[in-house]
Amino acid sequence: MYLHTQLLINEIAADEPDPAAANALQEGLGGQFGEMRTMMQYLFQSMNFRGDPASKPYKDLLQGIGTEEISHVELIGTTISQLLDGSPRYQGKKSDPVDQPGAGGATPLKIALDTSNIHHYLVGAQGALPVDAAGNPWSGSYVYNSGNLVLDLLYNLMLESTGRLQKCRIYEMTENKTARSTIAYLIVRDQAHENAYAKALESLGVNWGKVLPIPKTNAEQFPEVKKLLDKGLQSIQY
Amino acid sequence: MYLHTQLLINEIAADEPDPAAANALQEGLGGQFGEMRTMMQYLFQSMNFRGDPASKPYKDLLQGIGTEEISHVELIGTTISQLLDGSPRYQGKKSDPVDQPGAGGATPLKIALDTSNIHHYLVGAQGALPVDAAGNPWSGSYVYNSGNLVLDLLYNLMLESTGRLQKCRIYEMTENKTARSTIAYLIVRDQAHENAYAKALESLGVNWGKVLPIPKTNAEQFPEVKKLLDKGLQSIQY
Amino acid sequence: MYLHTQLLINEIAADEPDPAAANALQEGLGGQFGEMRTMMQYLFQSMNFRGDPASKPYKDLLQGIGTEEISHVELIGTTISQLLDGSPRYQGKKSDPVDQPGAGGATPLKIALDTSNIHHYLVGAQGALPVDAAGNPWSGSYVYNSGNLVLDLLYNLMLESTGRLQKCRIYEMTENKTARSTIAYLIVRDQAHENAYAKALESLGVNWGKVLPIPKTNAEQFPEVKKLLDKGLQSIQY
Amino acid sequence: MYLHTQLLINEIAADEPDPAAANALQEGLGGQFGEMRTMMQYLFQSMNFRGDPASKPYKDLLQGIGTEEISHVELIGTTISQLLDGSPRYQGKKSDPVDQPGAGGATPLKIALDTSNIHHYLVGAQGALPVDAAGNPWSGSYVYNSGNLVLDLLYNLMLESTGRLQKCRIYEMTENKTARSTIAYLIVRDQAHENAYAKALESLGVNWGKVLPIPKTNAEQFPEVKKLLDKGLQSIQY
Amino acid sequence: MYLHTQLLINEIAADEPDPAAANALQEGLGGQFGEMRTMMQYLFQSMNFRGDPASKPYKDLLQGIGTEEISHVELIGTTISQLLDGSPRYQGKKSDPVDQPGAGGATPLKIALDTSNIHHYLVGAQGALPVDAAGNPWSGSYVYNSGNLVLDLLYNLMLESTGRLQKCRIYEMTENKTARSTIAYLIVRDQAHENAYAKALESLGVNWGKVLPIPKTNAEQFPEVKKLLDKGLQSIQY
Amino acid sequence: MYLHTQLLINEIAADEPDPAAANALQEGLGGQFGEMRTMMQYLFQSMNFRGDPASKPYKDLLQGIGTEEISHVELIGTTISQLLDGSPRYQGKKSDPVDQPGAGGATPLKIALDTSNIHHYLVGAQGALPVDAAGNPWSGSYVYNSGNLVLDLLYNLMLESTGRLQKCRIYEMTENKTARSTIAYLIVRDQAHENAYAKALESLGVNWGKVLPIPKTNAEQFPEVKKLLDKGLQSIQY
Ligand SMILES: [Ca+2]
Ligand SMILES: [Ca+2]
Ligand SMILES: [Ca+2]
Ligand SMILES: [Ca+2]
Ligand SMILES: [Ca+2]
Ligand SMILES: [Ca+2]
Repeated sequence: MYLHTQLLINEIAADEPDPAAANALQEGLGGQFGEMRTMMQYLFQSMNFRGDPASKPYKDLLQGIGTEEISHVELIGTTISQLLDGSPRYQGKKSDPVDQPGAGGATPLKIALDTSNIHHYLVGAQGALPVDAAGNPWSGSYVYNSGNLVLDLLYNLMLESTGRLQKCRIYEMTENKTARSTIAYLIVRDQAHENAYAKALESLGVNWGKVLPIPKTNAEQFPEVKKLLDKGLQSIQY
Repeated sequence: MYLHTQLLINEIAADEPDPAAANALQEGLGGQFGEMRTMMQYLFQSMNFRGDPASKPYKDLLQGIGTEEISHVELIGTTISQLLDGSPRYQGKKSDPVDQPGAGGATPLKIALDTSNIHHYLVGAQGALPVDAAGNPWSGSYVYNSGNLVLDLLYNLMLESTGRLQKCRIYEMTENKTARSTIAYLIVRDQAHENAYAKALESLGVNWGKVLPIPKTNAEQFPEVKKLLDKGLQSIQY
Repeated sequence: MYLHTQLLINEIAADEPDPAAANALQEGLGGQFGEMRTMMQYLFQSMNFRGDPASKPYKDLLQGIGTEEISHVELIGTTISQLLDGSPRYQGKKSDPVDQPGAGGATPLKIALDTSNIHHYLVGAQGALPVDAAGNPWSGSYVYNSGNLVLDLLYNLMLESTGRLQKCRIYEMTENKTARSTIAYLIVRDQAHENAYAKALESLGVNWGKVLPIPKTNAEQFPEVKKLLDKGLQSIQY
Repeated sequence: MYLHTQLLINEIAADEPDPAAANALQEGLGGQFGEMRTMMQYLFQSMNFRGDPASKPYKDLLQGIGTEEISHVELIGTTISQLLDGSPRYQGKKSDPVDQPGAGGATPLKIALDTSNIHHYLVGAQGALPVDAAGNPWSGSYVYNSGNLVLDLLYNLMLESTGRLQKCRIYEMTENKTARSTIAYLIVRDQAHENAYAKALESLGVNWGKVLPIPKTNAEQFPEVKKLLDKGLQSIQY
Repeated sequence: MYLHTQLLINEIAADEPDPAAANALQEGLGGQFGEMRTMMQYLFQSMNFRGDPASKPYKDLLQGIGTEEISHVELIGTTISQLLDGSPRYQGKKSDPVDQPGAGGATPLKIALDTSNIHHYLVGAQGALPVDAAGNPWSGSYVYNSGNLVLDLLYNLMLESTGRLQKCRIYEMTENKTARSTIAYLIVRDQAHENAYAKALESLGVNWGKVLPIPKTNAEQFPEVKKLLDKGLQSIQY
Repeated sequence: MYLHTQLLINEIAADEPDPAAANALQEGLGGQFGEMRTMMQYLFQSMNFRGDPASKPYKDLLQGIGTEEISHVELIGTTISQLLDGSPRYQGKKSDPVDQPGAGGATPLKIALDTSNIHHYLVGAQGALPVDAAGNPWSGSYVYNSGNLVLDLLYNLMLESTGRLQKCRIYEMTENKTARSTIAYLIVRDQAHENAYAKALESLGVNWGKVLPIPKTNAEQFPEVKKLLDKGLQSIQY
């Protein structure tokens, strides 16, 4: 059973709207290796988890991380919504007829014709969509739950690592502070989850020695990330 | 931000495994009008909800119901998993080599060839899948969030009503007690949500007078449903 | 501009309901080579047809056949609906509680668990769906309109021939008279369209000599088809 | 049975080609709430309509509006084709080698690399496609036909309202007269269909009082729309 | 550049046709973790492989295994085709009119109505299809190629392990010798590829110690597999 | 059984990176009428080819062309990879921090926000993807294998012709020498395959007289194509 408290899991920094950054972040929300995927994959893995009491700690791990991922969906979705908010005004003039859209034949939504995903303006009302950065809708076929514990954990580790790789790439695509505050936070939490799954795999026999973190990208070079690492955020498991 | 407590939102009754019923319930989980849909639709509608403080109660409503829907996903997913648990043994003999699957060339999974969705045995390990009863994976294109409040609420009301209609049909497909305990609970909660959206729409000008509930199916005829209605479950909003 | 008259393009013979035959016919309605495909393909080809007045006869041909295809969609859709009508009663007892579905916990829809596409009973109300016989929804990606006239006509000829091939196969799957009356009619009209596209291609330089009709299946062996051929239905162009 | 007359249901105004506007209009043709959807949804709802003679007027309503929608598909498809016609020349020079495309290594189709949907130039020959404005192919899974009359009508009303909302947004994206003449016409007809479904729902018990039209956008502010409203086009049912 | 020799990579044992087994094998051909996937994934990974000469051995590894996978596609596709060959006769009588299908209104394809995937008889001519065991067409979105070498190898190892897990399950579903001869061969080669990727990962720092093979299923219990292991097939890299 | 030799089937000319051209070429790789399609279609047609020894030459033809198509996939995939290689640097400065991407908060991947398919930078590492030019993943539903030999050959001829038509269009979109060297080669080989299928169809009764090649586009006007035609490449069958 799930509960909700009206508090985001991390604060979103204020900056100008930025539709192009918003679209890149869609990969982190609705992409094959984004937050909707981790959330759903761990939810299914824990719902389908059966077996003797000795394996209960593994179920708890999946359920715990899975619950945190719902908050990640909420965080990145809200960030995208904020990045799209008022975008037409942003590139137009303050005096453009936003409140009376199109009154008298004006075209305040013209910006949509040149944007990364026209659906942000046409199907949604300048808000997040359950799609990736190329516009593909999220698909249930992404979810992996083989029922073999080692394989499920191995996939999860690879999933978190790929998520972290993609978020490092998104970080290198934009300087927008709203986008970066969320991306930096998610990079560090991905690392925490990588560690948690690696530790679980070690308890089952794998030695991860020199291979983690994946990707090797020294994320400390990203100022926003360094700040969070200095706080030790990557070592906390909720 | 979301929290989880290891308690299902409703108890699941014990009965024999039943793969055919499990497959019908997949529509209620991963179908176009199932629990994954309501959960995601309300989550996106609340993440993208902006506007003046006066409209905050509508955002709270969406967020509240949306959170309950995550628990519905957990409930129906766990029910499906339980309905599939041990199914091969169920139709085979007690002495079948379940612990040593296939030892010496045996075929304990033969049942899968004749089941509604072979993926329950082949891709998953006899657990719930994010697909509908015909095997279509859940799609992000289902989510509706136009940004027009009346339209969003109208769609939500129609969505809950269609969910209720389909669950009434599933109820009429199986006598399995495990399946029915969950289906009956979800039928009554759908009605509660129908009422909540109708009341919200009334506050915006629609008069629903004689039209609810949809469908007219007198669910009191279903014994499991009647028990819950007698408790007044349809009038509670979490 | 389109008009409608409340008359089917061919009469549907009466017979018992037959859900399995209904599902096979879905390929002829919503399949990759079914009636929705021909209807949409010719509609797009004629909407996008531009060019000098000399090529107007080709546009007229596409538009003419395209309009007939809408009536084919109507014919096969209505046939499927009729094949599903009352099916639960058909395999159950006359006294089953159909009018009060599920009253007192009965399961009049149990038949759905064992049917070819459970969606016929669960998502639809025992009616035709825009999907193929394997349950795949019809897709806009089927439509072919390259803009090269010879290629478009060649594809159309191949499309009609494949439709005819599949309908011959469906014919050999069922003896139900309702299903066969519609299938036989569509086989013969497919041949008429094959001929029309072949003639158009001949006017552009191809000699079809010995190759038509495709498939070679001597459809005169099918009694229902022979009756229509004797009437000369294959030689009429509307 | 359907008939066709070579006359568009509304005249298309002449203006320059405009590939970006053409792409926005694709949502109105092949989008989830576009004309292909309304056409197919009402076609399936009327094909599957069974029941006593008393409910015949509802079937007639669905069939009537459904037939008009085919003409809407034809209208918006032809408009898109016209908006794409000659586009390369439009942004290039009069003397560009259009008749001998690419002769001697020229690149008259270079414009395609920077256009909203490269398929308009690469897969089609500068014509309409059965896809939405983000390039997703139309899908049969869009069609809603629950078999519950109130729900079907409620969905239809919501569908027309969403179509109208999206077309208002498209209107605000472009000043092209070709695009606007068709969009304005469809906005007004959507309103007519909203009214028709609302009236049908009222006959079944819903009171729509203050809620229509949806969206509230005062479309009279759009000059092209006002002209049609003054003619009373919104009150005619074919 | 690729060459072909008209020799299968392994012999297919003779046995009766078996449509249900054929359908289960479709997962191994067109499923998310089947042979088309491994073939395409390694092909893309090697086409996109760039970098200094020192990493050439990794590219060679991917290219080598990738080429073997094309032969696996050929092997399992041919096996499915053989399992479907003559199936109607198999369950009907010797004297059924197979050569003159449907002559005089007979229904030699009736078997298709009750088969796992009707498309095997209706869309194909009793041959393999590029779909999985639940009928989903193979999708390019399956292919993983992140460009990070460790992640790509890790995914490949997980992919081979999941393929092996699913093939063990298929083995336990059928006793048909035709099906088992191919499945047994592929299980052993999957293990060879697991080993190759594990060794490559070890050269980059991971210690796989006790975790392989995945799944732990002692495949020596499967007689057909044991025979191949005794020959040392799992230790050969082509 | 397949073998590979580390030699491309044709040489790729050197030129600057060009992400827009790379994206156009994606249609030739992962599009509905691209090289993955021809490769898979002929592979399935030959795997499923059964029948008497007299028809063996047709199977050999399909298998021969099919094998060449794998080399085409390799050629165009490698070309796309080369066109994307180093693109960020290309439009940035030589001194941009490519080796230490994003060090200190830099945005070397900013170019991705404005590119045709952001996945080239975000999901892949500037390499080819199994998608078309509009970003749709390749689908198994493209493969056509009806089992009727004339129809299969007719579709193949139409498929090669459409591929040739699209490649002529791509040629006219870009002057990049890397892109053109591959496109020109594939145009000429498509013509060779058109001829081969036409000849096969003639042996079965069709007279192609004046209609080939399709499209009529006089490809000799393309300098790169003329050079290959002069060598007689269109008349060679491997
Ligand atoms: Ca996360
Ligand atoms: Ca619910
Ligand atoms: Ca037809
Ligand atoms: Ca309309
Ligand atoms: Ca393999
Ligand atoms: Ca080729």
